[in-house]
Amino acid sequence: MPTLRVELMEGRTVEQKKALVQALTKAVVDTLGSKAESVDVLLFDIKRQDWATGGVLWSEKS
Amino acid sequence: MPTLRVELMEGRTVEQKKALVQALTKAVVDTLGSKAESVDVLLFDIKRQDWATGGVLWSEKS
Amino acid sequence: MPTLRVELMEGRTVEQKKALVQALTKAVVDTLGSKAESVDVLLFDIKRQDWATGGVLWSEKS
Amino acid sequence: MPTLRVELMEGRTVEQKKALVQALTKAVVDTLGSKAESVDVLLFDIKRQDWATGGVLWSEKS
Amino acid sequence: MPTLRVELMEGRTVEQKKALVQALTKAVVDTLGSKAESVDVLLFDIKRQDWATGGVLWSEKS
Amino acid sequence: MPTLRVELMEGRTVEQKKALVQALTKAVVDTLGSKAESVDVLLFDIKRQDWATGGVLWSEKS
Repeated sequence: MPTLRVELMEGRTVEQKKALVQALTKAVVDTLGSKAESVDVLLFDIKRQDWATGGVLWSEKS
Repeated sequence: MPTLRVELMEGRTVEQKKALVQALTKAVVDTLGSKAESVDVLLFDIKRQDWATGGVLWSEKS
Repeated sequence: MPTLRVELMEGRTVEQKKALVQALTKAVVDTLGSKAESVDVLLFDIKRQDWATGGVLWSEKS
Repeated sequence: MPTLRVELMEGRTVEQKKALVQALTKAVVDTLGSKAESVDVLLFDIKRQDWATGGVLWSEKS
Repeated sequence: MPTLRVELMEGRTVEQKKALVQALTKAVVDTLGSKAESVDVLLFDIKRQDWATGGVLWSEKS
Repeated sequence: MPTLRVELMEGRTVEQKKALVQALTKAVVDTLGSKAESVDVLLFDIKRQDWATGGVLWSEKS
């Protein structure tokens, strides 16, 4: 039942996403004892122009 | 004031979304006594390659 | 698979929550054709001192 | 470390977003004493057909 | 209509929260031209044992 | 910079949380190549009376 939401800077490949969700799910199963089928992972690609750190959008950082 | 966020697999039509938000808002009004105008519903279309269950992306499931 | 997150002002009874999640789930089933078992609803009680509208916390409104 | 998520109706320009994240970050720094570098802001553009108030999608309002 | 969600490490006073929501709302009004009444801000106090950076809970950091 | 939010049924021990955030962070580092220090994980304990599946609160399931 654990549900994970992951916000990532855009640009990851589907292969990276496949590896990521598999590894995250295994991490939950190994440490909490959840069944894999009960784990949902949702990925959110965030554009560089929609994420700021220190008040500056990443699209503006050189 | 209740605010609802709904994560759906992508692919719903606008007609389905219209019916969904109307029904969800009515559900809140009927059970909590909120005024309809105070209910916000936000829909998030999630791509099949961004949602995994059991460690596998839905885009990979056959 | 639709997942709903609902933010509510604190103070609802468990009876109200039971009615709410039942009605919301029915709304999703009726309008999207989802199976009830695939619908998750999470409720978040927000304290009046943690919700502001118009720049004023609800705990400060008379 | 404060993290802000902002849901906006789609259509803001990058200039508006730049000004917004700068002003939000300053607001956190000024009132909480956080260091600017520790403040993350994520923006979510929501389409008018994905946001409803009062049970009606904004794309349907005239 | 912009909605802000702010995740903060627990321990802020109500006075700090009042100042924070006021400043955040003003930031939105000033940069986007929204009406103050349309801006909602929700604060989430996160316990040090529920926030990790670099794989370590803040409750474990000395 | 990836940020993870994890919603869990309440009742996990701090030891479980420590193991969980460590394993999740490692999963991100291993698959995306992120630096551990850039990974934030936030945990949300959800009460059984605030989570429903199939329209029934978990506090009502026997």
